[in-house]
Amino acid sequence: MSRFWSPLVQRLTPYVPGEQPKISNLIKLNTNESPYGPSPKAIEAIRNAADDSLRLYSDPVSLGLREAIARRTGLTTDHVFVGNGSDEVLAHAFQALFNHGDPVLFPDVTYSFYPVYCGLYGLPFETVPLDDGLRVRIDDFNLPNSGIVLANPNAPTGIALGLGDIEKLLAAHPDRVVLIDEAYVDYGAESAISLISRYPNLLVVQTFSKSRGLAGLRVGFAVGDPALIEGLVRVKDSFNSYPLDRLAQAGAKAAYEDEDWLGECVSKVMASRETLSGSLAELGFEVLPSCANFVYARHQDREAASLAAALRERAIIVRHLKGPRTSSWLRITVGTDAQCAALVDALKDILRRND
Amino acid sequence: MSRFWSPLVQRLTPYVPGEQPKISNLIKLNTNESPYGPSPKAIEAIRNAADDSLRLYSDPVSLGLREAIARRTGLTTDHVFVGNGSDEVLAHAFQALFNHGDPVLFPDVTYSFYPVYCGLYGLPFETVPLDDGLRVRIDDFNLPNSGIVLANPNAPTGIALGLGDIEKLLAAHPDRVVLIDEAYVDYGAESAISLISRYPNLLVVQTFSKSRGLAGLRVGFAVGDPALIEGLVRVKDSFNSYPLDRLAQAGAKAAYEDEDWLGECVSKVMASRETLSGSLAELGFEVLPSCANFVYARHQDREAASLAAALRERAIIVRHLKGPRTSSWLRITVGTDAQCAALVDALKDILRRND
Repeated sequence: MSRFWSPLVQRLTPYVPGEQPKISNLIKLNTNESPYGPSPKAIEAIRNAADDSLRLYSDPVSLGLREAIARRTGLTTDHVFVGNGSDEVLAHAFQALFNHGDPVLFPDVTYSFYPVYCGLYGLPFETVPLDDGLRVRIDDFNLPNSGIVLANPNAPTGIALGLGDIEKLLAAHPDRVVLIDEAYVDYGAESAISLISRYPNLLVVQTFSKSRGLAGLRVGFAVGDPALIEGLVRVKDSFNSYPLDRLAQAGAKAAYEDEDWLGECVSKVMASRETLSGSLAELGFEVLPSCANFVYARHQDREAASLAAALRERAIIVRHLKGPRTSSWLRITVGTDAQCAALVDALKDILRRND
Repeated sequence: MSRFWSPLVQRLTPYVPGEQPKISNLIKLNTNESPYGPSPKAIEAIRNAADDSLRLYSDPVSLGLREAIARRTGLTTDHVFVGNGSDEVLAHAFQALFNHGDPVLFPDVTYSFYPVYCGLYGLPFETVPLDDGLRVRIDDFNLPNSGIVLANPNAPTGIALGLGDIEKLLAAHPDRVVLIDEAYVDYGAESAISLISRYPNLLVVQTFSKSRGLAGLRVGFAVGDPALIEGLVRVKDSFNSYPLDRLAQAGAKAAYEDEDWLGECVSKVMASRETLSGSLAELGFEVLPSCANFVYARHQDREAASLAAALRERAIIVRHLKGPRTSSWLRITVGTDAQCAALVDALKDILRRND
């Protein structure tokens, strides 16, 4: 507390990201990064952009990158907004689109940054409970709202909604924005981008941090009706005209255009996920059906917190989220097959020793 | 206008950055970039960081970069905050520190992003007129306020305040934050960082976009009392936990540590500035005494807007800002000696032809 702080700052409960520890030989399965690096073309593009031209500001509208996204999604550039990670894109969306008096709605178990944005922009919110199987029930969102936010697949559960459900929601709330956060969509869910031409109230957010292997580059984007994008641009241009540096624009564009690389990395992760899910089930875990690059699992008779601690002693870190509905679960990023095998071996050892 | 926009979005008047045109052989003297590239060590550090480790999130607290800044400024890392360009740092500072009911104060002629931040965060503000010589008069800021913002040197004038004046302001407003925006300080003004240990209400903001030749990398920082820094961190962690990507952290750290390169580039620009100022005076311009990498000049009998347009026809762009007190002036970035000579030749030609 400081007398210099705006009253808001005292009330904030900031987001706490998964840790980025500096332990050597760590098997890091806690923040859902890809176990594979980015497209080699992205690395080449970044190295080529690392020259004296860095003295010049970056393109404030990131046109080249937006053109690449527009081409692949079959939209025009005025449907595309880019930002410094999807976290920044989400922040702008909350501020630009969700202040209409009623609460913002999102599930009680989902990305824990959503309530933080509401705190930052003074937006009331209401959480809608997932069902007993930790699934979203679309009909439960039929409440007065200033906007609805769904991660699809949801995190930390990994469970995906079908487009039919999303369309139902869009049709039921034509005067409110439905934001679909597709951070993990490439790992087996269906993107709602195909609905954009028919629903001016749909905003889809994606990131380069997961399937594109570029968490360290900080790039995310939103696609939606040009009116929604214009709202985001107005906020962005009132906050930081140049959110993406030259290297991020160059690297993200090259990564986005390399669909073969994306396909290869995603296929490998999905195959590893199925093997891992099977192995965990054999060890006595309940594993939710995941369409993401992580699995959500709980053991039939071992506490999640103590398992996470025991794994950590073996230099394997996974994510354990506190809270009434999440504290019995572990969210485990799908690593390489070797990393997944090491995790399973460690769990076997822990369960056998009962430590 | 869209029914989906928050009421705020409709009221915003976004900042309009200087253009980044894609004209070949352009002499670009409109956005105060350095005519010299960044330290070669920065480019090397970026290339070395462009590898598979980009799959991992960046350090959310940018510790290595903050340590470098702490070392050089003689402070500890809890005095240092970094962001995605000083624009982002300024935005967080406005939101975190300036909401206390009274207006935020800044000069009527200064960086035009300041009122935009106030609009974005719903902060009342009041502009304090510069004197007839476009100088800041410190005593005119003795008004009730929620915070005071001064660019030093000021932009677009280039005129610097001495530390005595800044100290007077700090002492007169012990319960309010005085933010000194030192984007251009390396070009001949004195930094207020030396006052931080004595004034807990002082926040100094600097950027890598000017003297460090890294406008395209998007890095800025603030230094101040740990309580102020904590306020900024709380906002940052409620907005985007990882504002700086891995390449920006690596490049900025290497650039910051290369003091020789900084000194060389700054010396060359300052020498060119003096030559340019002399040449402009010979052509009939009034030139304000600049401590920045630009000069602010007006011609005794030619309109600034028409001069800017005529220069543009010759592929030279400078910045002309509309407004009652700025429309007769041109802000001209100091380029290389060759670029400055080309500008002077073009102006000679324009004045002779009277076009």
